[in-house]
Amino acid sequence: MIRSDLTEKLLDIKREKGWTWKYICDQIGGFSPVLLVGALLGQHKLTKPQAAKAGELFGLDKAETAMLNEVPMRGADAVMPPTDPLIYRFYELVLVNGPAWKALIEEEFGDGIMSAIDFDMQMERLPDPKGDRVKITMSGKFLPFKYYGATGNVPAYGYKEE
Amino acid sequence: MIRSDLTEKLLDIKREKGWTWKYICDQIGGFSPVLLVGALLGQHKLTKPQAAKAGELFGLDKAETAMLNEVPMRGADAVMPPTDPLIYRFYELVLVNGPAWKALIEEEFGDGIMSAIDFDMQMERLPDPKGDRVKITMSGKFLPFKYYGATGNVPAYGYKEE
Amino acid sequence: MIRSDLTEKLLDIKREKGWTWKYICDQIGGFSPVLLVGALLGQHKLTKPQAAKAGELFGLDKAETAMLNEVPMRGADAVMPPTDPLIYRFYELVLVNGPAWKALIEEEFGDGIMSAIDFDMQMERLPDPKGDRVKITMSGKFLPFKYYGATGNVPAYGYKEE
Amino acid sequence: MIRSDLTEKLLDIKREKGWTWKYICDQIGGFSPVLLVGALLGQHKLTKPQAAKAGELFGLDKAETAMLNEVPMRGADAVMPPTDPLIYRFYELVLVNGPAWKALIEEEFGDGIMSAIDFDMQMERLPDPKGDRVKITMSGKFLPFKYYGATGNVPAYGYKEE
Amino acid sequence: MIRSDLTEKLLDIKREKGWTWKYICDQIGGFSPVLLVGALLGQHKLTKPQAAKAGELFGLDKAETAMLNEVPMRGADAVMPPTDPLIYRFYELVLVNGPAWKALIEEEFGDGIMSAIDFDMQMERLPDPKGDRVKITMSGKFLPFKYYGATGNVPAYGYKEE
Amino acid sequence: MIRSDLTEKLLDIKREKGWTWKYICDQIGGFSPVLLVGALLGQHKLTKPQAAKAGELFGLDKAETAMLNEVPMRGADAVMPPTDPLIYRFYELVLVNGPAWKALIEEEFGDGIMSAIDFDMQMERLPDPKGDRVKITMSGKFLPFKYYGATGNVPAYGYKEE
Amino acid sequence: MIRSDLTEKLLDIKREKGWTWKYICDQIGGFSPVLLVGALLGQHKLTKPQAAKAGELFGLDKAETAMLNEVPMRGADAVMPPTDPLIYRFYELVLVNGPAWKALIEEEFGDGIMSAIDFDMQMERLPDPKGDRVKITMSGKFLPFKYYGATGNVPAYGYKEE
Amino acid sequence: MIRSDLTEKLLDIKREKGWTWKYICDQIGGFSPVLLVGALLGQHKLTKPQAAKAGELFGLDKAETAMLNEVPMRGADAVMPPTDPLIYRFYELVLVNGPAWKALIEEEFGDGIMSAIDFDMQMERLPDPKGDRVKITMSGKFLPFKYYGATGNVPAYGYKEE
Amino acid sequence: MIRSDLTEKLLDIKREKGWTWKYICDQIGGFSPVLLVGALLGQHKLTKPQAAKAGELFGLDKAETAMLNEVPMRGADAVMPPTDPLIYRFYELVLVNGPAWKALIEEEFGDGIMSAIDFDMQMERLPDPKGDRVKITMSGKFLPFKYYGATGNVPAYGYKEE
Amino acid sequence: MIRSDLTEKLLDIKREKGWTWKYICDQIGGFSPVLLVGALLGQHKLTKPQAAKAGELFGLDKAETAMLNEVPMRGADAVMPPTDPLIYRFYELVLVNGPAWKALIEEEFGDGIMSAIDFDMQMERLPDPKGDRVKITMSGKFLPFKYYGATGNVPAYGYKEE
Repeated sequence: MIRSDLTEKLLDIKREKGWTWKYICDQIGGFSPVLLVGALLGQHKLTKPQAAKAGELFGLDKAETAMLNEVPMRGADAVMPPTDPLIYRFYELVLVNGPAWKALIEEEFGDGIMSAIDFDMQMERLPDPKGDRVKITMSGKFLPFKYYGATGNVPAYGYKEE
Repeated sequence: MIRSDLTEKLLDIKREKGWTWKYICDQIGGFSPVLLVGALLGQHKLTKPQAAKAGELFGLDKAETAMLNEVPMRGADAVMPPTDPLIYRFYELVLVNGPAWKALIEEEFGDGIMSAIDFDMQMERLPDPKGDRVKITMSGKFLPFKYYGATGNVPAYGYKEE
Repeated sequence: MIRSDLTEKLLDIKREKGWTWKYICDQIGGFSPVLLVGALLGQHKLTKPQAAKAGELFGLDKAETAMLNEVPMRGADAVMPPTDPLIYRFYELVLVNGPAWKALIEEEFGDGIMSAIDFDMQMERLPDPKGDRVKITMSGKFLPFKYYGATGNVPAYGYKEE
Repeated sequence: MIRSDLTEKLLDIKREKGWTWKYICDQIGGFSPVLLVGALLGQHKLTKPQAAKAGELFGLDKAETAMLNEVPMRGADAVMPPTDPLIYRFYELVLVNGPAWKALIEEEFGDGIMSAIDFDMQMERLPDPKGDRVKITMSGKFLPFKYYGATGNVPAYGYKEE
Repeated sequence: MIRSDLTEKLLDIKREKGWTWKYICDQIGGFSPVLLVGALLGQHKLTKPQAAKAGELFGLDKAETAMLNEVPMRGADAVMPPTDPLIYRFYELVLVNGPAWKALIEEEFGDGIMSAIDFDMQMERLPDPKGDRVKITMSGKFLPFKYYGATGNVPAYGYKEE
Repeated sequence: MIRSDLTEKLLDIKREKGWTWKYICDQIGGFSPVLLVGALLGQHKLTKPQAAKAGELFGLDKAETAMLNEVPMRGADAVMPPTDPLIYRFYELVLVNGPAWKALIEEEFGDGIMSAIDFDMQMERLPDPKGDRVKITMSGKFLPFKYYGATGNVPAYGYKEE
Repeated sequence: MIRSDLTEKLLDIKREKGWTWKYICDQIGGFSPVLLVGALLGQHKLTKPQAAKAGELFGLDKAETAMLNEVPMRGADAVMPPTDPLIYRFYELVLVNGPAWKALIEEEFGDGIMSAIDFDMQMERLPDPKGDRVKITMSGKFLPFKYYGATGNVPAYGYKEE
Repeated sequence: MIRSDLTEKLLDIKREKGWTWKYICDQIGGFSPVLLVGALLGQHKLTKPQAAKAGELFGLDKAETAMLNEVPMRGADAVMPPTDPLIYRFYELVLVNGPAWKALIEEEFGDGIMSAIDFDMQMERLPDPKGDRVKITMSGKFLPFKYYGATGNVPAYGYKEE
Repeated sequence: MIRSDLTEKLLDIKREKGWTWKYICDQIGGFSPVLLVGALLGQHKLTKPQAAKAGELFGLDKAETAMLNEVPMRGADAVMPPTDPLIYRFYELVLVNGPAWKALIEEEFGDGIMSAIDFDMQMERLPDPKGDRVKITMSGKFLPFKYYGATGNVPAYGYKEE
Repeated sequence: MIRSDLTEKLLDIKREKGWTWKYICDQIGGFSPVLLVGALLGQHKLTKPQAAKAGELFGLDKAETAMLNEVPMRGADAVMPPTDPLIYRFYELVLVNGPAWKALIEEEFGDGIMSAIDFDMQMERLPDPKGDRVKITMSGKFLPFKYYGATGNVPAYGYKEE
């Protein structure tokens, strides 16, 4: 059994039962929907209690339940650049705005990155008379580039001087 | 003159003058910093009054100022997957989370996309005792996939039924 | 079951029954043929009533019918550049004419795009003594690039000034 | 001198003079704007009289004028998939709709292609209270796949039988 | 059933029966061997009478026979650059000689292409004491690039003037 | 000086002088036009006498003339898949017909290839009332795959047995 | 001025002066050699005092010195897979051992990554009678994948449970 | 049976039994865990005694056990650039630091490479109050580039002079 | 049945029987081991007598035996650049030394190539106290580039003049 | 100055002087021609005495001479797959024969590689009445894959057992 087989099975059951993601997330609980749905699509692990609940909900056997508790090979089967228009638009945001994000984050925080690991994200519907909007709020820990091995008159670790 | 020549010139002047992006944005005004910096890096156009201010600030000639008012070939010179770690982390977010975003947006809004054109974005510093965070708030208009040519017993235009 | 399995099944049935696309579209109705055929080839969703009709026509079970009502991962399995000559010619049109389309649309409409989501398309046969022609009429909503965060003396939202 | 040098020169002059594409097309005449702008961007040749007019308008020397009358290496410098959002949307239309176009054209016309060479295209602004639309009308000659070498009881040349 | 499954089946039968392509082409008839073999390898369609003969020869069922009469997704499964030495040599001819062919065809015929659709090809063995040669004779209709929308003092349609 | 600089120079002179390829080939002589034009475009070497004639015709210095007598890095600067429609059509012929060519050549000649090195090619205009055709006649020496090291009861060298 | 121009200049001076990297690192100080050399090759920023020392050492002007204090577009100009054998061997280590590293790190630390940002590295020569060895010691902070949005009976933040 | 089938089987058994890699490595023994886990994931061979132990542990048949003793096609199924964040960070280290590693190794050792074949690697957990660290110690034999064929006044074989 | 299925079957049998390649080559005979092993791995054809022997040895049916006598689609399933270190080293030799090989062969032989078709290769173990060496001796027929169509004062066919 | 500038300069001088590679190698000496020519084409370093001789021969300044003594970024500017037919044939040998080489080397030597670093190569002309042959003799040190960390009953270091 490979992870995409399990994903296919979960989607088959969801389809047959007529469940929504909201219903499934409510049954499993514990994480934000983005993480839970991502886990069921094979991009994250569930905790043991969550995997147990998912296993019960979907009627999985022991090995399938264990697989939901494993860290998957993330990004497997992703096609880049994305061919799906919904996902491509996010890709395009990176393509077009990447250099500006880099310039502004570095000016504000110094040399480093916004973590994609210590990272949170909420998705909301923003009612708007001109057409509702998708609102996404993300926050990632800023990780300063560490300059080790420093000696003498410059700070050795995680300095912020420019 | 091609756009990247102008970008190189603007960065040379910024470097020689010791200006920050914040200072430059304050001088030009009118847009959020993400858009203004993006425009100066060759990814967006400035309005005529903005281009005039930028031209004055950087000491540009008439043609250079006009070029800032042109829509550039967006994404030119971008490398994908990004090699720079700061930009790559955003790419990775799309790679890993794309399918979950698709599933949740479609369940909430129906078939369609979050526009990357009618799109707004704010970047903030979020103080955190465990390490400050980069907070990004984005909102894009939801654009429902239009099914034209409908006849008979299903709605013809921009229906939301599932 | 993945979407391409379902597509393969639908094509097998169409082949065995000897149906034309025209016949199938007439049975399902509601959309233009380009959309209906695209949906059956796994690129769009059908509405619930359409999926029900398709299910009845092709003798599908409940889960297969439900899958036709899901938004697929669009563009999956597409090969780019297209190897099929018929599809490649369209690709070539973009390759060769893209920059001119960009220049003319931006001069006429300002900064923005022609939507590929709020988009309609008709295909007709144009009799011509030198050889019939394929006539394609497309119209997509122009989406102006929004410049948010505007302050002071330039318009803040969806301006059209150049 | 290579073609992109000439294109860069033409755009520099256009920028300095403050000309629109419409003005330039009116001065040169003879083709639709899509073709004329494409030719000036290095994707098509101009006829000799057109090249002469362009040469006069832009103040070109003899060799530059001659180059405008040469068939360029079409598609040179194009980036695929396109990074610019405006051009990408057209690419996406091919990506998502290509198989449906193929199915419908072949059902209507038989085996063959829509020519991208014997091809015409108009672009118009379609006023719409919900937002103006870009209307594109294309027509390409249908070229039936020729099956040569036929003998006996099937037609030898350009048959339409299925 | 997808086309490559059918191709695999046909090759299995050919192998078990010990048939040559020549024998198979003689049984089906109607096209040149290049077209017939290409069709059986999944790159072209057969006419209905040809498909019927092929179906009888190979003992196919109705749906398999119908598939041979469908236009396949040409080029599917092709690997480019070709890894097989025999096919690569043709690719190399295009790689090395493409620009010269372009220059000479355009000087002789004007702006346009040699059609790969209205195209014929013969393959012969040319005895030669230094080693026999493969002789290939191709002829494709020249398709002039059409410049539509012409007005005033240049010809409007399919002109040949330079 | 690199080869593409020399090619650019030759094309500049050709353009300024208003020469045709036919005129240039007549002046240099000795090879078929496909080879001569290919050599001037940087894909082949000229013999010393030919290079001397070309040097005189174009007014080249000693080093430039010597470069024309060098074997260039063939295929340099070629873009594959070709973006230019004229060259792409040849590429498409390989893409679509490659497997059939392989099957037929191997059935006729045994295991081996058609040489792209010991190779000749003529291009002609074929008048045709339905539109003139480009006729291309190629012949390449068949090179049998050599199976060395053979011992015992199978032929050791260049056998033709199947 | 772009960063690779500055790198080229620094290498020209190093070559003309006959300096070693060791000498240069001793003059600038403050970081480990891997970081300092990386910075001079355009992959990291130097601190202001370091940039000042480097500017004095290499005789740079104010803008060049400022550029050394900027965060560069990391990875620019890198070729992947690396063509240089020395760099390729590191790439191969990732290619071959990546899955085992993932399995072992995740078993020991849980879901997360080894940071490439909060990262230190030493390189030493390890004398060995069979041939000296390159010893590399790296340590990167383990960053646990954060699961935000947790509710109810599973830990909300940075949990370690499996 | 292909190697990835065997890997899938081993992981299924590990999952069903609830074994850790540590337990499995202890049972098989003889290599460092990085090598053992790599071998079970299809990247290395086990020795015959190790394969026998693994066969017993996992209940494999003779052919499966023999396959564990074969050198696999290393790197098969690896995706590069890696999509999984944990593996990508190692790739990024090569991307960003490759040129500096090359410069320093060559300055210290002369022309050559660090072997990825005669190579050892340990992975440890480094407790750190700011967050534990992954410590990796690698050592690879330095392989000097051999310059054969030397004659006269320079050393002929494996010289170290610069 | 496709060729890789047959290869998988042959390897399964070899593994179960515990045969070496040497043993298998001795049973089949007639070619050098490089060719025989290549043929069994799906890269070459065997002669009929060889295929018969192989069929008997491996217990193949008639169709499988016939497939061994067919010219396969060479290079199918090869991954380039090779991920396996053993194969990659050969690729690297071409990458690094290709231009020098070209320069030296052309200086010695004139314009042409070393055939990869009329090609022989031996592999030996070269005992060496510093570590045994792999010795490879290859010889390929030099194929002069033919310049056809020559007229007048240069030789017309296969000339060697420079 | 970057390495390709120096290569271009060396080739310009060679061309102007009319030197052969043989003449140049004789003047510099010390390495086999493959290595010397490779070094002058920017793929290897020369020793200091060799660089001095080359500098004198070509009239280089101090920095250019120093650059010849540096290890270049090998493989820079190489195009893979090679477009030049002479180099491509070597690439094809790897593509087609790679798996057989792997099988035979591993059976003879065990797990490991043939070094591309401790590697020697000779090129000779082999007279043959059917056409002279290019003979290439290569020998590379076999590097056994080292399995470190071994414990207990299997050898710890560089074992040869299978």
